[in-house]
Amino acid sequence: MHLLSFDPRAFRWSGIGPSDYKSGSGDVRGMSWTGVSRWVLASPETVAADYELRYFEIEPGGYSSLEKHRHVHFVVVLRGHGRALVGEHVHDLSPFDALHVPALTPHRWLGEGDIEPFGFLCPVDRERDRPQPLDDGEWDRLRANPATARYVF
Amino acid sequence: MHLLSFDPRAFRWSGIGPSDYKSGSGDVRGMSWTGVSRWVLASPETVAADYELRYFEIEPGGYSSLEKHRHVHFVVVLRGHGRALVGEHVHDLSPFDALHVPALTPHRWLGEGDIEPFGFLCPVDRERDRPQPLDDGEWDRLRANPATARYVF
Repeated sequence: MHLLSFDPRAFRWSGIGPSDYKSGSGDVRGMSWTGVSRWVLASPETVAADYELRYFEIEPGGYSSLEKHRHVHFVVVLRGHGRALVGEHVHDLSPFDALHVPALTPHRWLGEGDIEPFGFLCPVDRERDRPQPLDDGEWDRLRANPATARYVF
Repeated sequence: MHLLSFDPRAFRWSGIGPSDYKSGSGDVRGMSWTGVSRWVLASPETVAADYELRYFEIEPGGYSSLEKHRHVHFVVVLRGHGRALVGEHVHDLSPFDALHVPALTPHRWLGEGDIEPFGFLCPVDRERDRPQPLDDGEWDRLRANPATARYVF
C-alpha cells in the first residue's frame, strides 16, 4: 500500500494502529512515563529504508521517560503544544518546530496542551541502541539546574 | 543548536535556507522540473543519523523530475495540495497524508494548489543512489496508461 490517508478529525492515518510506547511502566529512576502513544508510520516491515518513522502523541499532563541513548532524535511537531528537556535546556514547542536531540543527551517530552495532545514525527535510525537511564552525575546536575529541576523525576 | 523554530507566516524554519533541488535543469527525457525548492532540516553535517530530513515545496503548477532510484521515499505532507505519480498510480495528497515510494518505482510530485505551495517532509537514507530516468519500457507503459499519461513528459 502506497498511501496512508490522514483523517484530520481523528488525527490518525489509515491502516496504522497504536504500538506500545514502552513494554514496561518504567520502574527505574526517571524512566516513568504516562499518556504517551506511539504510531509507527514506516517500519522495516513496510519500508526498505535505514530509518523508521514514528508519530508520538502525549496527552496534556503526560510525559515520556527521562532517558538518553547513542542514537539521535530529530523531531518535527505536528500538533498541539509541548515542552522538551534536552540536556541543560527546556524548549517550548508548537506545530512544525523541529528539535535535535544529540547523542547521549538526556531528554524528556511533556504534553503542555489544555485539551489537544502534543504530537510529533520522529524519524530514527533502524539500527539503534536501547534507551538508558541517566547516571548519578547527570541526574544531580539536572536536579540542581533551576531550568530543568522540575522535569527530573 | 537544538531548536529550529518554525515561523507559520513564512512557513520557514529559523536558520534554514533553501538548497538547490537539482544542480541542472533536467535535459534528459522526463527529468525536467520547475517550481521546486528544497530545505534540508537535518543533514549529516548537523545531525549524526543515518537519515537526512528534507522539506520540499512545489509551487502551484510546479513539478519534480520523473525519476526512479533504489532508495525509497516515505513522505508526509505538511501544507497545501499535491499529486504524486507512483508507479502506475496517481494519488491526491493533503496535509499529513503519508506516501511510500518503493525502490526503483518511477515517481513525480506535482503542486496542485491555487495559491498555497504543496509542501512535504521527506526523510531519506544518508547513503543512497542517484536518481535515474525511466527506461523505454517504463516510459512507454506509463504513457499508455490513461491514469498516468499526462504526467509523463
